[in-house]
Amino acid sequence: MHSYRSHTCADLRKSHVGETVRLAGWVHRIRDHGGVLFIDLRDHYGVTQVLCDPDSPVFDAVEGLRAEYCIRIDGNVKARDASLVNAKIPTGEIEVYIRDLEVLGSADELPLQVFGDQEYPEETRLRYRYLDLRREAMQHNMVLRSDVVSSIRRRMWDRGFREFQTPIITASSPEGARDFLVPSRLHPGRFYALPQAPQQFKQLIMVSGFDKYFQIAPCFRDEDPRADRSPTDFYQLDMEMSFVEQQDVFDTVAPVIAGVFEEFGEGARVDAPETWPQIPFAEAMLKYGSDKPDLRNPIQMQEVSEHFRGSGFAIFAKLLEQDGTQIRAIPAPTGGSRKFCDRMNAFAQKEGLPGMGYIFWRESLSADINKRAAELLKKWDSEGVISNPDDVDAFINEFDDEIFSGPTLWEHRAKLKEAREAGDLERVAFLTKAYTMEAAGPLAKNIGPERTEAIRQQLGLGVGDAAFFLGGKPQAFERVAARARDVIGEELGLTEQDRFAFAWIVDFPMYEADEETGKVDFSHNPFSMPQGGRDALDGDPLQVLGYQYDLACNGYEIVSGAIRNHRPETMFKAFALAGYDESEVRNRFGGMVNAFQYGAPPHGGCAAGIDRMVMLLAGTSNIREVIMFPMTQRAEDLMMNAPSEPTPDQLMELGLRVIPQE
Amino acid sequence: MHSYRSHTCADLRKSHVGETVRLAGWVHRIRDHGGVLFIDLRDHYGVTQVLCDPDSPVFDAVEGLRAEYCIRIDGNVKARDASLVNAKIPTGEIEVYIRDLEVLGSADELPLQVFGDQEYPEETRLRYRYLDLRREAMQHNMVLRSDVVSSIRRRMWDRGFREFQTPIITASSPEGARDFLVPSRLHPGRFYALPQAPQQFKQLIMVSGFDKYFQIAPCFRDEDPRADRSPTDFYQLDMEMSFVEQQDVFDTVAPVIAGVFEEFGEGARVDAPETWPQIPFAEAMLKYGSDKPDLRNPIQMQEVSEHFRGSGFAIFAKLLEQDGTQIRAIPAPTGGSRKFCDRMNAFAQKEGLPGMGYIFWRESLSADINKRAAELLKKWDSEGVISNPDDVDAFINEFDDEIFSGPTLWEHRAKLKEAREAGDLERVAFLTKAYTMEAAGPLAKNIGPERTEAIRQQLGLGVGDAAFFLGGKPQAFERVAARARDVIGEELGLTEQDRFAFAWIVDFPMYEADEETGKVDFSHNPFSMPQGGRDALDGDPLQVLGYQYDLACNGYEIVSGAIRNHRPETMFKAFALAGYDESEVRNRFGGMVNAFQYGAPPHGGCAAGIDRMVMLLAGTSNIREVIMFPMTQRAEDLMMNAPSEPTPDQLMELGLRVIPQE
Repeated sequence: MHSYRSHTCADLRKSHVGETVRLAGWVHRIRDHGGVLFIDLRDHYGVTQVLCDPDSPVFDAVEGLRAEYCIRIDGNVKARDASLVNAKIPTGEIEVYIRDLEVLGSADELPLQVFGDQEYPEETRLRYRYLDLRREAMQHNMVLRSDVVSSIRRRMWDRGFREFQTPIITASSPEGARDFLVPSRLHPGRFYALPQAPQQFKQLIMVSGFDKYFQIAPCFRDEDPRADRSPTDFYQLDMEMSFVEQQDVFDTVAPVIAGVFEEFGEGARVDAPETWPQIPFAEAMLKYGSDKPDLRNPIQMQEVSEHFRGSGFAIFAKLLEQDGTQIRAIPAPTGGSRKFCDRMNAFAQKEGLPGMGYIFWRESLSADINKRAAELLKKWDSEGVISNPDDVDAFINEFDDEIFSGPTLWEHRAKLKEAREAGDLERVAFLTKAYTMEAAGPLAKNIGPERTEAIRQQLGLGVGDAAFFLGGKPQAFERVAARARDVIGEELGLTEQDRFAFAWIVDFPMYEADEETGKVDFSHNPFSMPQGGRDALDGDPLQVLGYQYDLACNGYEIVSGAIRNHRPETMFKAFALAGYDESEVRNRFGGMVNAFQYGAPPHGGCAAGIDRMVMLLAGTSNIREVIMFPMTQRAEDLMMNAPSEPTPDQLMELGLRVIPQE
Repeated sequence: MHSYRSHTCADLRKSHVGETVRLAGWVHRIRDHGGVLFIDLRDHYGVTQVLCDPDSPVFDAVEGLRAEYCIRIDGNVKARDASLVNAKIPTGEIEVYIRDLEVLGSADELPLQVFGDQEYPEETRLRYRYLDLRREAMQHNMVLRSDVVSSIRRRMWDRGFREFQTPIITASSPEGARDFLVPSRLHPGRFYALPQAPQQFKQLIMVSGFDKYFQIAPCFRDEDPRADRSPTDFYQLDMEMSFVEQQDVFDTVAPVIAGVFEEFGEGARVDAPETWPQIPFAEAMLKYGSDKPDLRNPIQMQEVSEHFRGSGFAIFAKLLEQDGTQIRAIPAPTGGSRKFCDRMNAFAQKEGLPGMGYIFWRESLSADINKRAAELLKKWDSEGVISNPDDVDAFINEFDDEIFSGPTLWEHRAKLKEAREAGDLERVAFLTKAYTMEAAGPLAKNIGPERTEAIRQQLGLGVGDAAFFLGGKPQAFERVAARARDVIGEELGLTEQDRFAFAWIVDFPMYEADEETGKVDFSHNPFSMPQGGRDALDGDPLQVLGYQYDLACNGYEIVSGAIRNHRPETMFKAFALAGYDESEVRNRFGGMVNAFQYGAPPHGGCAAGIDRMVMLLAGTSNIREVIMFPMTQRAEDLMMNAPSEPTPDQLMELGLRVIPQE
C-alpha cells in the first residue's frame, strides 16, 4: 500500500464497504460522542468521516489529536446506518473505523480556525495565509482562478493564438503609472524596470511577423494603496493580432470572455456577444456617467438642461449661464417616496456634492372621480357585490381621458379591465379609486407644473417614480452621478441579479486638456491609431477620436485595447500634439519607433484583467480574495516579511546608498 | 472584403484559381524576370508567389517595393504551368496576379536580411531582434517554445494539477544565487526581491491544503555572464505534490517530459520512462564524472587505482599515497590509435590538466600463427580458391586458445566462422591473418604487461581500443574527465544521434565540506528531507543522503527536485549541522518554518527547465535562440536600452543615492 493514502478524502463510496483503506488529510473537526471519537478528515478533494472507538489499538493516540493535525490513518470502511447517511457529501454513505494512525504534521494552537465561518482581521488572514487558504471559500476561489486561467488559455489556443513570454526585467516604459525599478549589479547606477504591461513587446512581436499573440502576463505598477487593486502587480490576458481592424478584435475576444463567464458563471445569464452594444465614450458618459457602465441597471441618465434654463430654480438657471455646464437627470422608476429621495440626497452630500435635487410623482385623488368612485363603492358595499358589472365599464369610459393620460396609467387601466373580466370585484373596488398625479419635491415647486410635466414626459416616468438632478460641468458631477445610478438601481431592485451584462465602449477621445493649464495630453494610450489617421491630427486635438476601446461588465472595465498607430510619421505627429518632439519620442520609445521603420504591419489587440474577471465570478470586490499570496494595501507581505532591509554587501554590489529618513 | 486579407499567405490552392483575393504580408524577395516582377509574399503562415506584369494598373508602385515592405495586394489567382509548380510549399500550384497594392508599412534599408541564411553578429541580431525574429529559424524556435509550453500545460492539467501564480515581487530568499532587489517606495530603505524560484511559495501552497500544484514560473537570478544561461531570468515548470514519496514524483513527471520530447523530437528516439535508470549520485560521478551524464554515450569510467598502486608509473603510484585520491580510466572503444590518443591528451592539457595518460591496444601478428597463416594464404593464392574449406576449421581449432583468448576476439572468431560458412573466401583470407594484441603507449611500458592486461580485462577492451587515465582527487579531475568522455564519445561516433536519453540521478549527499576550511554546508537544497529522517542527522553529516534528485537528458540537467523536509524539528537539526542556529533559520525562512508548525503534510516535487528543454528540442546550445527578447550576456537589452539611468525624481522617491563609480 502507498505510504500515505490509498484513496483521497473524496473517494470512498458504498462500494468500498469492507475494504481496508489508507487516508491522509487534516483533522477538520473532532467530536466525542459517548466515548467514540468522530473526525471529519479533510483533504483538498473532500471530507470523509473517520471514527475511533475504544477498541481501536490507537484510541489513545487519536484522543491526542487536535484540529489541523495532518494525519495518516488506516481503517475499515463501513456503511453508515441509513439514518446517519449525509447526502450533502459524496462520501456520506460510509465511515472509516480507524485501526492505525500516524501524525504527519502536528499543529500548534491555531491563530485562525479553518473549520466554520469565523471572520478574522485581514492582517491575521494574510499573516497566516496558509491556514486561511485551507478554508472552503478560499480553496474555491483559488481553484476558480486557476480554472478560469486554464479556460482562457484553451480558448485562445483554439483560436490560433500562441502564448509568448515577454521580458520581465526590462526597460522603463512610461505608461502612466510608476515603474518598479531594479538596480543593475553589472552596471552600477543603472536600473531595469518591471513592465507596467507588455505593451511595447507585444507590438514588437507583431512587427516580428507573428500573427496572433497572447500571454497571461504579470504587470507591475507601483500604485498607491486602494482597496480593489493589488499595490504591486496584477495579471492580464494580453493579446495582439496583425492585419486587423477594431471589429476583428471584438469578434475574437468577445467569445472568449463570454465563454469564460458562461463556464464559470454558475448559471447567471451571460449576454450573448452579438448583443453587446458598442457605446461611444461620449454617450456612455452622458447616459451612465461612466465609461464602464453596469448595464444590468436599466437606468439611463438624460440631459434636461433646457427645462431648467431661465426657470425659477435659480441655482440651476444660473449654473447654465456658465460655459460647459448642463443639468443631468437620473430617472428612478419606483423611487417615488420622500424617504427614498431624501436618502439619495444625503448620499450625494456624503459624496461631496451640495446635494441632489429631485422630483417624485405620487397619486392624488381628483375630486370628481373621488365623488363618483365613492358613490359606486358605497353602492357595492351595501349590496355586498357589484350589482352591475357595466358600472365598471361606465366608470372606465367616463373618466378615461382624465384618469389615464399619463403613460404609466395605461397599465392601470388595463389592470382595471382585467380585474373586471376576471370578476375579481374586490380588486375592481380597489382600482376604482382612480388616480391622478402630483409632482412633489422643492424642485417641482420652483420650476412650476409645465416644466415639471415636460421633464416627466421626457423621462417617461409616472406615479410612484422619481428623478434626481445634478448640475454643473459634467466632469464635476459625473462620478457621483454614476455612483448614484448604481445605488438607485440597487436599492430599488432595478439592477438585475445573476446576470453578466457587457458593453463595448468605443470612440475614446485621443486627447484631453488639463483643466487648469489647458495643456493637451493623451487621455489614454498614446500608441493608439487616431480615427482618420494622420489627416485627423490637423484639426482640434480634442475632437480626435482613437481606435481605442474598453469592455465593461457589470460596472467593471475588464478589457481595454486599441488598434495601434503603426505608422511612424503619424505617431510622431500624434506625440507632437501632446507636446513631445521627435527626439523625446525616440528617447522614450526608441525600441518600438525604430522597429516601425522596417515594415510594420497594422495591428491591434487588448488586455483583459484576470483578477477583475475572477473577482466578478467569485462575487467579491476585494482583490485579495482571489490572489493566493497577496500584499497588504501597504504593499507588505506579512507572511514572508517583505520588503526588508538589504545587507550592506547587497547595497555595495549595487552601488547604492540608502538616504536616511528623518 | 476584409480591409487587409481574404486569405493568409499559406491558404491558396488550385481550388482558388479564378478567385479575386486579398493578401497581406512582407516582401520576402522581389525579382524581375523579363519585365515581370515576382514577389515572394510572406506572412507568419507561409509564402505565396505574387506577380505583377506591366499591364497591372499598379505596376509602377510595385516596382518601388523593396524587401520587408509590409503590403496588401488584391489580385487574381491563376494556376502555375505544370513546369513551374513548386512542390516545396503548399501554395506552390498557384500564383496571384497583382491588380491593386497598398503599402501598409515601408522599410528603410535593412541592417539584417530576413531572406537567406546570412549570419550576423549577435549584437546586430539583438538590436534588430524584430528583423531577426522574422527569419524562418527563429519563427520556428519561437513557435516550438510556445507549443512546448502549451503541451506541458495540457499534460499537467490532464494529470490533475492546477496552475497557481506565486508572487514575483516578494521577499529575499537566499537560495544560492544572487537576488535581484526592488526598492520599495512606500517603505524607503527597504527592498523586495524577485524570486530565484517559487520554492517556498510552492511548499506553502502544499501547507495550504492544495494537493497538486504547477506553474510555468519565471525565476530571477542575478547571474554572472555565461553562454548557456540567461543573465537575468529563466522559466521553469515548477511542480509540487502532497502525500508523496520520491517514486510518486518520478511516476508523475516522467511521462510529461517523455511525452513532450516525443511530441516535438521530430522522430528522435525517446527512451521510455520505465527504462530510465535511477543512478545514485556517487555512481554517476564515478562512471560519468558528472551528475548529468549523457547516456547516449556508452562509455562508463571505472576506478583502476589498484593496478597503479606501487606500480612503475611513479606519478600515479605517488599520487595514490595521498588520502582521497584515485586513478580513473575512461575506456575508448575503437579509439586505439596514437593520433587519437595524442589528440585527447592535448585536449586534457587545454582543459588545465597536466595531461591524460593512455594505453591503446593494437594488432600484432604472432610468429607461429603468422607462419601457419602465410602458408595457407600462399596455397590459396596459387590455387585462386580455398581448395579445402576444412583448412579453415583446422586453422580455427589449432590456434583457438592462442588467438581467441581476449574477450573481444571472441567476436573475431565468430566472424571467421561466419565467413567460412558463407563461403566468402576473400574475407576468410583476410581474417585468417590472426591477431594478437600489443598494448602501446608510455603508461603500458611503465607498469608492465601484467598490470596492463589486468586493466584491459577490467575494462573489457581489445585490439583497436584505448583507455585514458586520470589521477588525483576526483573533484579535481572529474570535470575534465566528463568533458573527455563527451569528446571521446563524439569523436569516435559512439554517442548515439537522434536520441533523447534520460536518467534519474538520486541519493545526492545532503552536505559537503569546504575543501579549504572543512566547514560543512548544504550541497544542494537545504529544504530536502534527509534519508532516514531526523535520526540520520546524528552521524557524520557527509554520509547523509537526501531525497533529492535530478533528471539528466543528453548531458543536461533538465529537472531537479526533492522530497521536502516538512518537520520543523528535523529542519532545525538539518540546519544546525550546516551551522545555522534556530533563530537564524527563523529569520531567513520564517514564513515557511512558521507554516510547518500548523499541520504540514509530507510533500515533494521538482522543477524542469523550460529553456533547457526547448534548447534540446531546437538543437541549439545558445539559450538566446529560444528566447523572444533575450538580454545580452552582459545583461543588457540593446533594443529597448536597458538598464538605463533613473531620473533624480525616481531615486528621491525611493530614498536612494547612487554611489559614483570611479
